[in-house]
Amino acid sequence: MEERQKPNRDENIVAGRNAVAELLRSGREIDSLYIQKGELKGSAVSLVAKARQQGIPVKEADSRKLDFMCGGVNHQGIIAVAAAWSYAELSDILESAGDSPFLVVCDHLEDPHNLGAVIRTAEAAGAHGVIIPKRGGVGLTTAVAKASAGAVEHLPVARVANIASTVKELQKKGIWVYCADMDGQPWCSTDYSGGVALVVGSEGQGVSRIVREACDATVALPMLGQVNSLNASVAAGIILYEICRQRQGINPIVPKKKA
Amino acid sequence: MEERQKPNRDENIVAGRNAVAELLRSGREIDSLYIQKGELKGSAVSLVAKARQQGIPVKEADSRKLDFMCGGVNHQGIIAVAAAWSYAELSDILESAGDSPFLVVCDHLEDPHNLGAVIRTAEAAGAHGVIIPKRGGVGLTTAVAKASAGAVEHLPVARVANIASTVKELQKKGIWVYCADMDGQPWCSTDYSGGVALVVGSEGQGVSRIVREACDATVALPMLGQVNSLNASVAAGIILYEICRQRQGINPIVPKKKA
Repeated sequence: MEERQKPNRDENIVAGRNAVAELLRSGREIDSLYIQKGELKGSAVSLVAKARQQGIPVKEADSRKLDFMCGGVNHQGIIAVAAAWSYAELSDILESAGDSPFLVVCDHLEDPHNLGAVIRTAEAAGAHGVIIPKRGGVGLTTAVAKASAGAVEHLPVARVANIASTVKELQKKGIWVYCADMDGQPWCSTDYSGGVALVVGSEGQGVSRIVREACDATVALPMLGQVNSLNASVAAGIILYEICRQRQGINPIVPKKKA
Repeated sequence: MEERQKPNRDENIVAGRNAVAELLRSGREIDSLYIQKGELKGSAVSLVAKARQQGIPVKEADSRKLDFMCGGVNHQGIIAVAAAWSYAELSDILESAGDSPFLVVCDHLEDPHNLGAVIRTAEAAGAHGVIIPKRGGVGLTTAVAKASAGAVEHLPVARVANIASTVKELQKKGIWVYCADMDGQPWCSTDYSGGVALVVGSEGQGVSRIVREACDATVALPMLGQVNSLNASVAAGIILYEICRQRQGINPIVPKKKA
């Protein structure tokens, strides 16, 4: 397991009620919990009680201190300072995934909200892990953890040096790698059985040419209106849940007309 | 259908008593009026009365929020937020939708990124319009327009006084209204043929009880991991594209195992 680096203090700060709740559930070591003065109400009460039960020091602070600690993220009056996170190793993810791994590969997502939402959706859809690049694109920042609604606590995220080589490495292990992009086969007419990885591209550029060419197939969503793309995390979510549907063996409605 | 105008970021926030008075006289569409706590006196009283007469939601906020909204301009305790885009009438949307309308109803989305992403996905999935509430929830602000990637220019958005009554109104016109929430039937085993409306709930609370009870059915996504919900716009996107798939008559993969 690679030791997670500490480039700035944000790395250990978990902000917002959902994210703090997930952190408390995760069993991860927590240094302290900060609650904003006057904000010990609603769901914060049970979070503070849970923290005290676990022997975590609870401190009161004013909103300015909380704002400063989390760098302007909307903290909802509650912040936890966690012990350093670790990125997972891809080999560990593959080992624990069993015969039919289900992975998401992010080819340089830049918006923390998008990466967070992709991790959240991947965790909910039953994926075994998320792969992000070491360079280019956002890492597991506080904003990403918050946008993931705590899913970063449950789903391993691995960093790799090169996405295209990783695609080839996955293929060697018998995993079919699908690229989400324009001009592909319909997302729902594709058989995702067996080991599967979905590559999601960046907000502006989509999947890079070299990565796209390394993939086994491209799957696409119909664009019936005037806009020509979807939000990256929404597009990823739609395809991830189609993969989830097939893996879970949930029968779909077969259209009676057209087709 | 009203002509949509391009927004100017600075023109959406109107601060100060004289400027707000002029705006109220102008007939331009106004999303909401903010009055500073304790400042409902003097000429502000008649401005608030006039706004209420015009059906504009009036909200109280502290001076810090007003300062932040108008970027430090001297607001004299009163700010109006003009709509960045004009709203459509629900009756016009229904008229232009034909025999099988496809609508999205947002039950109090608060995050502009989420509303923008929902409008963007709805437009791409072939929906005829989006319905949002007059009070509670974000309106068509500049941030929403930006997050929609321009979809607000192509897809009509209507504001209604009451979401639950609107659900009943749609049902009277033969539209089946589905609520996206936990504990519903699988999203993809539901037949969405004919006129269809999907109700999406707020980020924190989901769909309100009264709206949920008014709907014909609840559809849900499986949550296979530890997190218990998805980002609102991702969840909406997954179901909107399942509706799109059925409306387009695209054949799905039928799972061979399990089921």
